Amino acid sequence: MIFASDNWMGASDRVAAALVEAAGGHAPAYGNDPLTASVEADFARVFEHEVAAFFVATGTAANALALAQFGKPGGVVFCHHDAHIAVDEGGAPEFFSGGARLHRIEGAEGKLRPADLAAAIALYPASAIHHGQPAAVSISQLTEVGTAYTPAEIAALAEIAHGAGLPLHMDGARFGNAVAGLGVSPAETSWRAGVDVLSFGGSKNGCFAAEAVLFFDPEKSRGFEFHRKRAGHLFSKSRFVSAQFEAYLANDHWLELAAHANGMARRLAVGIEAVSGASVAFAPAGNEVFAVISKAADVALREAGAAYYEWPSGGLIAAPLDKGSILVRLVTSFRTQASDVDQFVQIVSANRA
Amino acid sequence: MIFASDNWMGASDRVAAALVEAAGGHAPAYGNDPLTASVEADFARVFEHEVAAFFVATGTAANALALAQFGKPGGVVFCHHDAHIAVDEGGAPEFFSGGARLHRIEGAEGKLRPADLAAAIALYPASAIHHGQPAAVSISQLTEVGTAYTPAEIAALAEIAHGAGLPLHMDGARFGNAVAGLGVSPAETSWRAGVDVLSFGGSKNGCFAAEAVLFFDPEKSRGFEFHRKRAGHLFSKSRFVSAQFEAYLANDHWLELAAHANGMARRLAVGIEAVSGASVAFAPAGNEVFAVISKAADVALREAGAAYYEWPSGGLIAAPLDKGSILVRLVTSFRTQASDVDQFVQIVSANRA
Amino acid sequence: MIFASDNWMGASDRVAAALVEAAGGHAPAYGNDPLTASVEADFARVFEHEVAAFFVATGTAANALALAQFGKPGGVVFCHHDAHIAVDEGGAPEFFSGGARLHRIEGAEGKLRPADLAAAIALYPASAIHHGQPAAVSISQLTEVGTAYTPAEIAALAEIAHGAGLPLHMDGARFGNAVAGLGVSPAETSWRAGVDVLSFGGSKNGCFAAEAVLFFDPEKSRGFEFHRKRAGHLFSKSRFVSAQFEAYLANDHWLELAAHANGMARRLAVGIEAVSGASVAFAPAGNEVFAVISKAADVALREAGAAYYEWPSGGLIAAPLDKGSILVRLVTSFRTQASDVDQFVQIVSANRA
Amino acid sequence: MIFASDNWMGASDRVAAALVEAAGGHAPAYGNDPLTASVEADFARVFEHEVAAFFVATGTAANALALAQFGKPGGVVFCHHDAHIAVDEGGAPEFFSGGARLHRIEGAEGKLRPADLAAAIALYPASAIHHGQPAAVSISQLTEVGTAYTPAEIAALAEIAHGAGLPLHMDGARFGNAVAGLGVSPAETSWRAGVDVLSFGGSKNGCFAAEAVLFFDPEKSRGFEFHRKRAGHLFSKSRFVSAQFEAYLANDHWLELAAHANGMARRLAVGIEAVSGASVAFAPAGNEVFAVISKAADVALREAGAAYYEWPSGGLIAAPLDKGSILVRLVTSFRTQASDVDQFVQIVSANRA
Repeated sequence: MIFASDNWMGASDRVAAALVEAAGGHAPAYGNDPLTASVEADFARVFEHEVAAFFVATGTAANALALAQFGKPGGVVFCHHDAHIAVDEGGAPEFFSGGARLHRIEGAEGKLRPADLAAAIALYPASAIHHGQPAAVSISQLTEVGTAYTPAEIAALAEIAHGAGLPLHMDGARFGNAVAGLGVSPAETSWRAGVDVLSFGGSKNGCFAAEAVLFFDPEKSRGFEFHRKRAGHLFSKSRFVSAQFEAYLANDHWLELAAHANGMARRLAVGIEAVSGASVAFAPAGNEVFAVISKAADVALREAGAAYYEWPSGGLIAAPLDKGSILVRLVTSFRTQASDVDQFVQIVSANRA
Repeated sequence: MIFASDNWMGASDRVAAALVEAAGGHAPAYGNDPLTASVEADFARVFEHEVAAFFVATGTAANALALAQFGKPGGVVFCHHDAHIAVDEGGAPEFFSGGARLHRIEGAEGKLRPADLAAAIALYPASAIHHGQPAAVSISQLTEVGTAYTPAEIAALAEIAHGAGLPLHMDGARFGNAVAGLGVSPAETSWRAGVDVLSFGGSKNGCFAAEAVLFFDPEKSRGFEFHRKRAGHLFSKSRFVSAQFEAYLANDHWLELAAHANGMARRLAVGIEAVSGASVAFAPAGNEVFAVISKAADVALREAGAAYYEWPSGGLIAAPLDKGSILVRLVTSFRTQASDVDQFVQIVSANRA
Repeated sequence: MIFASDNWMGASDRVAAALVEAAGGHAPAYGNDPLTASVEADFARVFEHEVAAFFVATGTAANALALAQFGKPGGVVFCHHDAHIAVDEGGAPEFFSGGARLHRIEGAEGKLRPADLAAAIALYPASAIHHGQPAAVSISQLTEVGTAYTPAEIAALAEIAHGAGLPLHMDGARFGNAVAGLGVSPAETSWRAGVDVLSFGGSKNGCFAAEAVLFFDPEKSRGFEFHRKRAGHLFSKSRFVSAQFEAYLANDHWLELAAHANGMARRLAVGIEAVSGASVAFAPAGNEVFAVISKAADVALREAGAAYYEWPSGGLIAAPLDKGSILVRLVTSFRTQASDVDQFVQIVSANRA
Repeated sequence: MIFASDNWMGASDRVAAALVEAAGGHAPAYGNDPLTASVEADFARVFEHEVAAFFVATGTAANALALAQFGKPGGVVFCHHDAHIAVDEGGAPEFFSGGARLHRIEGAEGKLRPADLAAAIALYPASAIHHGQPAAVSISQLTEVGTAYTPAEIAALAEIAHGAGLPLHMDGARFGNAVAGLGVSPAETSWRAGVDVLSFGGSKNGCFAAEAVLFFDPEKSRGFEFHRKRAGHLFSKSRFVSAQFEAYLANDHWLELAAHANGMARRLAVGIEAVSGASVAFAPAGNEVFAVISKAADVALREAGAAYYEWPSGGLIAAPLDKGSILVRLVTSFRTQASDVDQFVQIVSANRA
C-alpha cells in the first residue's frame, strides 16, 4: 500500500531493459549521439510538432531552467499559490533566474483562473520599475491537487499570457497522467493550447531519471544549452536519458503506464467515496487522490504498512474538517496493484468515522 | 579504436545489473532510503574515514556545488590554468558561487606548484577588498594532462591552502584512475593528504551517471543539501545513483575497472614511444595519453575509424611540434580492448614521421 | 502642496553646507578617512552601543545587502505582505541573496504579528529541504502605512525570530520619523528591542543620498564589506556620505527634521479628520497620512497644484470606500509648510463628500 | 603632494555650487524630473549623438551593470589582463552577470591588441558549450597604465568585437582625461570608433559621486532600468547626480578640469625624466604617471608628506628594476598645484639613484 509518491517506485521493465541494452555500446558524449537525435524526433512525432528537446536530471531542473530561459532582471513569474515551483523546489526557479519573484495566485481546484492571472499581471505596469517586470506564466499539469486543466482552460490562460507578451510554461511532472486522464492528444494540452515550453516528466511514471524541457518554437530555445551547461545539467552520458525516453515513448508505453496509474486512482476514489464519512476532495484527473479519512482509519492503515502523506487542508478544501478526520494525499503509480487499493479502501471502510 | 573520452563508454555489467535490480522495488524518495544510507557507509569504509556523501547528476555539478559551499562575495578560487572547472564547465563554478572568480595558475605537467599557489593567494591580502577574497583551492586528480599528484604533492598544497584558511577541493572525475595508478589507498590521496572535499566521479569509469560530493568533515557540509536542492540536483529517485555506487564500490570493482583502463593507457604509451618520431608528452598516471603522432598517422587512423581529439599543444608541451606532427589526447576506458590499442599503435608505426 | 514623497525634497541647509565644506579638501578614498571613522563613532553615541556602520547609495541597497549578509541557499525572508523589500525594490533583495524568497505575511496596520510570524516560520521545518530554509525576518519602521512598532512589539517579533535562529532586520528608511514619533531613544526601538541590523535612512529626511547599514553586533558584519563592494556600493569618495551624516546626526538635527515633518503630518491628519466625509485610515506615527477624501476634493487639489499619490485601498482598510471617495497617501517632509497643509485641508473641506 | 588617486580629491567649486542650489527645491523622484531630462540632452549634445543615459553610484556599478546588460549564461567578457573590472571591482562584473567569466588578455602599454583579442574570442567557438559563450569586449580609456587608445586603435578592436557579434564596452572612469589628452572630440573616441556602451566617470574629475552608463543605441539599453533597480543603484534623489553632471558638462568644465590634471601629469613626467636614474614608464596620455624613482627618493617623499602608491612592476615594464629603484603610480587631479609637482620632482632629483 505505497501511496506516498509515484517517485517511490522503480522503473518499468521496458525502460530498464532499454537502459541495460544501451549500457553495452559506446557513443559520443554530451548528447551528440544518434540515439539522442532519434529521441528528439520521437518527441516531434508524439507532439505532432517541431520540438527542441533538452534532457536534464530532475523536474526541478527542468522547471527552473525553462523559466531561466525567459528570465529578466526583476522578473516576476506568475503561478498558482501552491505551485511546485513556489513550494517545493528549494528556490531553484529564483536562483536560476537571477532572483526571479514568484507571484503566487490563489485558485480553487489547484487552477489559475484567467481573470486572476490578468489582475496579477496588471499589478506590474511597464512604468513601475520598482515592482519588477513580468517574465513568464507557469501552470502545472496535473495541478498540485491532482486535477487537470482542459485544453480550453489552458488556452484562456495562454491568451492572457501572450497578450502581455509572456510565455506560458507548463510543469508537466505528471504530464502523462494528465494526457491519459483527459483523453486528449499531447498536442491538444500543450502547444495547440498555447503552451510555449513544457517540462516533460518521465521519472515519476516509469523512468529512472528522465526529464525533458521541450520548446515548441525552437527559436525560443536559442542559447538554452548554455543555461543547462552552466547549471551542471548536461549529462556526459546523455544518451542514457535518451535510452529511457526511447522506450518510454515507443508504442505509447508512457500513456499505458499512466493509464494504469490513473485507473488505480479512480478505483481508490470510487472506493473511498463509497465509505460513509470518507470522501474525495477533488475528482482525480490523474493519479492523485486527496481524500478525507477518519483518524482511526489513519492509525489502522499505518499499522498495516500503508505509506502516504497527511496533507494540510487549510486553503485546499472549503469546509473545515471535522475533528475526527484528516486529509491525505494518495498517489498511485504504474505499478500499483488493485489488491493494494482494495485493501486500503477496506481499512478505511472498517474504520469509518 | 575509441579513445575520444571515457565518457563515450556505456556502463559496466555489474553496475547495469545493480540498476536493473533496484528498478524493481520501491523506496522513499530523495535519498531517504536504506540503500543510500548503506552506500554512505560504503564510502566511509572505502575512505577509512567518516564522510558526508551527496549524490549529484554530473561532474560539473559536483565541482560547482562543492565550491559553492565555500562561496563568499567576491570569492576567488585558485586552480590550475587548464583546470576543468576553469575551461570546461560553462561557468557553473562561477554561477553557483554568486560570481566567484577562478584565478588560473600556470604549472608544468598539469600541476599546481606550492610556491605558485602561495604567490597567487598573496595577491589578495585581507585589506584589499577591491580584489576580492580567497575562497578555496581546487586541484584535479588525475590532472587535465593525465598526470597524478602524489600524496606529498597534495599535502604541500593543502598546507598552503589551510595556512590561508582555505579548503582544498579535489576534482576527482578520474579519481579511481588516479588511485589505481598511484597504487595508494583512497585515503592517502584525499583526506590524509589534506583534501577537504572531493568530487568523486563514477560516470567516466563504468557508471551511467553517478557523481558524489564527499566531505571528510561532515560539519563543513552543513547546509550543503540546500545548495544541491536549489541547483536542481537532488534526484527524486536518488537510490538509483546509490545502486550504481553500491555495485561500483563493492569488491573494489571501481579500482579493477580503473586498473584495466590504466593498463591499456600504459600499453598505448609504450607502443607509441617505441615508434620513432612519435612520443608521449607525459608519463600517463592513469587512463589518458597525450601523444605526438604524425599527420599521416592521423589521416590513416581516422580512416580506420579511430576516434580521439587533437589537442592544442601551446602551453602544454615545451618544444614546438614539427610541422608534420600533431598532439592528440587518447583516453582509454574500462572497456578498451588490447587489440584496439595494438591496432592503433600499428597504424602510428606504419605512418611514422 | 507637495505630499507625493519625502524623497521629492532637497537637502537640509546644514547637510548641504557640510557637503560643500567637505568638497574643499582631500582624504583617502573608500572610507579610509578620518571623517568616516568619526561618523561611525557618532552612530555609536546616538545608539548608545557599539555599531558597525556601512554607507551605501540607496535604501534598496541597504536593505538588500543587509539581507544578503544572512543569505542562505534556498533562503526565505519573512516580511509583511506590503513590505518595501517585497513590493518596491525591483527584486534586489532576491538578487543579492542568490534567489532568496520573500515570504509575505498579512497584518493589520502594516504590522507583522508575532503569532503570524511564528506560523509562517513553522512552514519551513529543518527537514523539509524542498521548501527552503528560513534566513531572516525583516520589518519596516515606520511601516508601509505610516504606523510605528512600539519597542514591545518589536521585542515580541525579535523573540520569535531569535528563537528560530534568525536575525531581525529593520528597514529604517523613515527611522528618524519613527523615533521622533514614538518619543523613545534610537536604542529602544532598535538593538534594545532585539534588532540585529538596521537600514538607517537619511535620504528621505534631509540628506542628498545617505543610507547606512548598521550592525549592532560587529561580529555579524564580518565580510559585509565584500558584499557591498561586489554590489558596486562602495563609494570612492565615501567621505561625502560621511559629511552628510555628520551634519545630520549632530545636535539631533535628524530628529528635529523628523519632528517637523511629523508635526505637519499630525496637523494634516487633524485637519482632515475634522472634515465630515473625510477621514484618516491610520493614526500617523510619523510623516505619512493615509486619508480618504472625496473625488471632488481630488480634482480641486490637483488643479491647485497639489502632488500626492492615490493609493490602492484593497487590503489596507477594512470597509470598502464609498463610490465618491478615494484613498490617498500624503507624505510630509522636513520642509513642509503649515500653510501648505492648511491650504490642502481647506480644499478637502470645501469639497467634502 | 597628494598623488595617491584622483578620488582623494573633493569636488570642483562649480559642481559643489550646483548641488547646493539643487538642494533647495523639490522635484519628482527616481529621475523623473526635468533636470535629469535636460542632462540627458546635454550628453547628447556633448557626444553629438542620441544617447540613453543612466546614472549610478559608482564606477564599479557603471561597469558591472553595463556588462550585465549583455550578460548570457556562461558568458565571457574579454578584457585586458590588468583591467579594472578584472582586478579592482570585487567580483561585481561577475556577480551582476550571473557568473560571467573575465577572459584576461596580456597587452603592452595597458592595451588590448586586435590580433590577441581575435585569438581569445576564437577559443570560444559556438559549438563548444563547455567553454561558455562570448558576451562582450571591454576596454579602459584611459587604460590602467595611463595610456590612451587612439580612435583608430579603438576602431580596430570594435571591428573584431562586432565581427563576432559582441558589443564593445568602454570603462571611462577617466574618459575626460583621455579626451582632453588625445585632443579629439568625445564622439571620436566613443561611438564613432565603435563603442556601444560607455561608463562615463565624473567622480574622479571633480564630482562628488556621478557616474553614467551611456548607450549610443538606445535600443540596446532596453530593460537596463531593471538591471539598475535590481542592483539598488536607482537613486531616489537622482536629480542630485543630474545637478552635478549639469555643472560638469556645462561650458566644457569637465574638459578644463581634465586638461589641468593632464598638464600637471605632463609637468611631473617631464620633471622626472630630467632626473638621471629616474624615468617614466609610459608617456602619460592623461593624469597618471608611472615613474621609476630611487628608494631614497621614496623615503624622502614620504617624509615630506607625499601620498602615492608603489606599484608592482612585474608584467608592466619590460626591463627589471635595479635594486635601488621602485615603480610608483602618481595621479594628478583637477586640483593639483604646480608647486606640489615641482616639490615632488625636486625631492626625486635630490635623491637620484
